Amino acid sequence: MSEVNSQARIGLIGLGVMGANLSLNIAEKGFPVAVFNRTGSVTDDFVASAGELRDKLVPAKTYEDLVAALTTPRAVIIMVQAGGPVDAVIDALTPLLDEGDMIIDAGNADFHDSRRREAALRAKGLNFIGMGVSGGEEGARHGPSIMVGGNPASYETIRDIIEAISAKHDGDPCAAHFGPDGAGHFVKTVHNGIEYADMQMIAEIYGLLRDGAHKAPAEIGALFECWDKGPLKSYLVEISAKVLQAIDPGTGKPMVDVIVDRAGQKGTGRWTAIEALTLGQSPSTIEAAVAARSWSSAKDARLAGADIFGSEPVSGLTLPTEPDFESALLVAKLVAYDQGFKLLKAASDHYDWGLDLARAAEVWREGCIIRSALLDDMASAIRSGLPQEQLIFSADFVALVKNGLPALRRVVGYASASGLPVPALSNALAYFDTMRQARGTTDLIQAQRDFFGAHGFERTDGGAGHHGPWGSGAL
Amino acid sequence: MSEVNSQARIGLIGLGVMGANLSLNIAEKGFPVAVFNRTGSVTDDFVASAGELRDKLVPAKTYEDLVAALTTPRAVIIMVQAGGPVDAVIDALTPLLDEGDMIIDAGNADFHDSRRREAALRAKGLNFIGMGVSGGEEGARHGPSIMVGGNPASYETIRDIIEAISAKHDGDPCAAHFGPDGAGHFVKTVHNGIEYADMQMIAEIYGLLRDGAHKAPAEIGALFECWDKGPLKSYLVEISAKVLQAIDPGTGKPMVDVIVDRAGQKGTGRWTAIEALTLGQSPSTIEAAVAARSWSSAKDARLAGADIFGSEPVSGLTLPTEPDFESALLVAKLVAYDQGFKLLKAASDHYDWGLDLARAAEVWREGCIIRSALLDDMASAIRSGLPQEQLIFSADFVALVKNGLPALRRVVGYASASGLPVPALSNALAYFDTMRQARGTTDLIQAQRDFFGAHGFERTDGGAGHHGPWGSGAL
Repeated sequence: MSEVNSQARIGLIGLGVMGANLSLNIAEKGFPVAVFNRTGSVTDDFVASAGELRDKLVPAKTYEDLVAALTTPRAVIIMVQAGGPVDAVIDALTPLLDEGDMIIDAGNADFHDSRRREAALRAKGLNFIGMGVSGGEEGARHGPSIMVGGNPASYETIRDIIEAISAKHDGDPCAAHFGPDGAGHFVKTVHNGIEYADMQMIAEIYGLLRDGAHKAPAEIGALFECWDKGPLKSYLVEISAKVLQAIDPGTGKPMVDVIVDRAGQKGTGRWTAIEALTLGQSPSTIEAAVAARSWSSAKDARLAGADIFGSEPVSGLTLPTEPDFESALLVAKLVAYDQGFKLLKAASDHYDWGLDLARAAEVWREGCIIRSALLDDMASAIRSGLPQEQLIFSADFVALVKNGLPALRRVVGYASASGLPVPALSNALAYFDTMRQARGTTDLIQAQRDFFGAHGFERTDGGAGHHGPWGSGAL
Repeated sequence: MSEVNSQARIGLIGLGVMGANLSLNIAEKGFPVAVFNRTGSVTDDFVASAGELRDKLVPAKTYEDLVAALTTPRAVIIMVQAGGPVDAVIDALTPLLDEGDMIIDAGNADFHDSRRREAALRAKGLNFIGMGVSGGEEGARHGPSIMVGGNPASYETIRDIIEAISAKHDGDPCAAHFGPDGAGHFVKTVHNGIEYADMQMIAEIYGLLRDGAHKAPAEIGALFECWDKGPLKSYLVEISAKVLQAIDPGTGKPMVDVIVDRAGQKGTGRWTAIEALTLGQSPSTIEAAVAARSWSSAKDARLAGADIFGSEPVSGLTLPTEPDFESALLVAKLVAYDQGFKLLKAASDHYDWGLDLARAAEVWREGCIIRSALLDDMASAIRSGLPQEQLIFSADFVALVKNGLPALRRVVGYASASGLPVPALSNALAYFDTMRQARGTTDLIQAQRDFFGAHGFERTDGGAGHHGPWGSGAL
C-alpha cells in the first residue's frame, strides 16, 4: 500500500463537484492523485464510483495520509469553499509539509487573499500557487481554462499536469502562468466579470425578443442556435440556445418560464467591479450586470413597481431586425472585453505583474465559460498592439464596430422607447460614444467644481489650476 | 492674553479655504474660536485679515497654546487633508487632551477611518466626532449642511455651535447627528455620490443641447436659469446657469469653451460606489458619474477614437423639446436620489446606525451642494413611508415620474441614435424600467448558471435548489 501511496504526483483536498471532477481529469491523464475529503465516506464513495480511474486515485483519510502519499516536492490542490475554509485547510496542512512543498488554491479566491497566503507561506519556505479554474463541472472534468499565479519555478514542477488537464485550442493548452501571487486569481476574477456582462447582454436581448417581439423561448433558442454558427459563436450563446429550448418535464412548459427571475451571485462579478473602482477603472458593462442581478433579487419591489407603473412595454414601435439584435450583441460584447482588458492592464501596472493580455485572451479561447470565436481574434488584435490600449480601436475590429453600432443604436433606442431595460447594452453604447468624443461635457463639471470648491481647471490654451470669473457670487 | 485665550469654546486646526471660512462663520456667530495652522504665518495673516471678527479669533502657534486656549471639555475641529494628515494631527493632539475632551474631524473622511478613529480615541477616554460638512467655501463661511456621527452626549456639548453655523431651512438647522462613529461621514459620502450623479446628468443635458441642438453656452445657461425657477430649482442648476453664461476675460470666449474636458475627482464619488457594491447595492447613476469622470481623463484615447469613428452626432434626428429635457432631468434626478437613499438604508441596516433618512433629506435642503426644491418633497415623502423603500414608488412622486418618463425615453432614445453619450440618464432609465418589471430576464441567467455550474434555481411553483433537464450535454 504505502508503495502505491507514495506514487501520487499531486494531492487534492475537497471532493465537491469541482474537486471531484478535477481529480478524475487528473487521473484520466495518467497522474496518480491522492484525494481527501473532510467527510471520509465522501472520499470512499468517490473512489468507489470512479470506475477504471480508481487505480489512479489514492484515497486518504487524514491530512497525514495525504501528505504521506505524495512524491516530493509535494503539491496539494485545495478545492474548498473560498475564504475561511481555505485558510483552515492551509493551517492544517502547513505543519505537515516540508520546505519547497506547494499548496495550490484552485477555488474562486479573492486575489488579495492569494497575495496574503503566498507571502505567509513563502515566509515558511513553502510555495503557494493561486490557480483560477473556469469551465464549471464539464470543464473541470474534461478540460478547464486555467489561470495561474505564484512562484514560476514552483509552477514548473506541476506544469505538465496542469497543461495536460487543461482545455486545448488547436493543441495549445488553455493554461498559463500570469505572474506572481494573486495574478492568476485576478485574471480569473476579470474572466468572471466579463462572464457577468456577457450573460447579462444575452439576457437583455432575450428580454427584447420575449417581451418586445413576443417570441416563445424555443423560437429565441432557435435564433441563438443560428447565431452560434456565426461571429457570436460562443459557449454562452450555445447554452442559452439549449436552455431556452429545454422543456420542464414536470409541467411541459418551457424551462425558463418556470424559473424564478431572481439571480444569485457568488460575488466574483461584484469583486471585479470593486477592484476596478479601486484601480480607477469603470467597467460599466460589468457594473451593469452586477446591478441587474442585485436588482432582480428585489422581486417584491419590482412587483410593487409593476402595480404602480405597469410592466407592459409600449407597443406599436418598430422592432429592430434579427440581424440588428445579432450585430448589437456582438459589438456590445466587444465593449465588455475592451473594459475587461483595460482592467487587467490597470491591475498589471499597479501590482507590477507584467500580465500578458494576449495570453489571457488565448487561455480563454477554450475550456472556460466565456470561450468564444471572438477571443481568437482578440488575442491576435492584442498581440499586434492596441491603439491607446483600446480593443474597440483595433484595426481588426473597426469594421465590426462600424457595422454593429447602428444596430446597437436601434436596439438601445427601441428598448428605451418601449420600456424594456437594457442596462448592459446601453452602458456599452454610452462607453463607446464617450471614447470617441473629442470634446466631452466634463468642461461643465470642471467649471461647477471650480465654482463651488475652487478646485481649479486646465485651460485649452495651456496651464492648470486656473479659476473662472465667478466673482463673489460664487465664493 | 491667557485670560482671553481660556475663553475659546472651540478650536480649529487647518486654515485652508474650508477651515478659514468655517472659523469666520463660528466667530461671526459669537463663539470665540482658537485657530491654528501648521505654518504660523498663515495663522497671523488669517487673523490680521479677519476685520471685525478678529476679536473672536484666538491665534495659537502651538498645539499646546491651542489646547490651553480652550474651555473644558475641550472641542477641537480638524480641517486638514483627509487621510494621513488627520491621523498626524490626532496623534499630536491626543497627549495634550484630558478625558472627556473631543476631537472633531470635519474633513471629507472615509467613514471607515472615522470608525477606526472613534474606537481608538474612545479607548483613551476621548470623544471623536466625524462631521461631514458640505457647501464649499461659501457654505463654510455662511452656513453649510452638517452631517454628524459620534457620541451623541459629546455632540450635545457643541450642538449650539454646530447648529448656529449651519444653514437653515425655514429656521430648521441643516445639521443633525445621524448615528455613532462613521454615520455622519457616510451620509456625507452618499451626499457626494448623489452630487456626482446630479452634476453628470446636468452635463449630459448640456451636451445634448450643445452638440445636438447646437446651442451656445449662454443660450443653455439661460435655459437652465429658467429651469431654476421651476421644479428643478437647485444650487447645481443655478450655478450651471451662471458658469455657462460666464465669459473668459482673457479671450472673450464662453468660459466653458476654454476649459479642458478632463474631470478631476477627489474620490468621494468612487468611495460611494465601492461602499455601495460592498453593501450589495448598485447605485448605477452614481457609478455612471464616476465612470464618466474617469473616462474623461483619457483625453488622448478619446481623440484617437474620434479620429477612427468621428465625433459628429448623427444629424437629421428629431430633437426632444426643451420641456422634454427639463422633465427628463427631473425624473432622472429622482432616480439618483432613490438609489442614494437605498444605499443609506443598506448601510444603516448593516452597521445598525438607525439612520433617519428623512432627516438626511432635510439636512440637505440648504447649505450643501445638492440642495434643491425637490429635497423638501423627498423629506416628506420619506416621512410618510416609502413603498418597498423606493422613493420612485412614493405616491408623492408618481405623477412626476409618469409625466417625466416619456420625456426621459425621448431624450435617451435621441442620445442613443445620435451618438451622444448619456451614461447617467440611460442608467436612470434602465433602473426604473427594471424596478417595474414583474418578470425580468434573470430567469435565463439562472438557467445558464445551473447549466454550467449546477447552481440550482427557484421554481415559480415553489422550492429552491432545482435543476434543469440539461442532461449529460450540460455537465
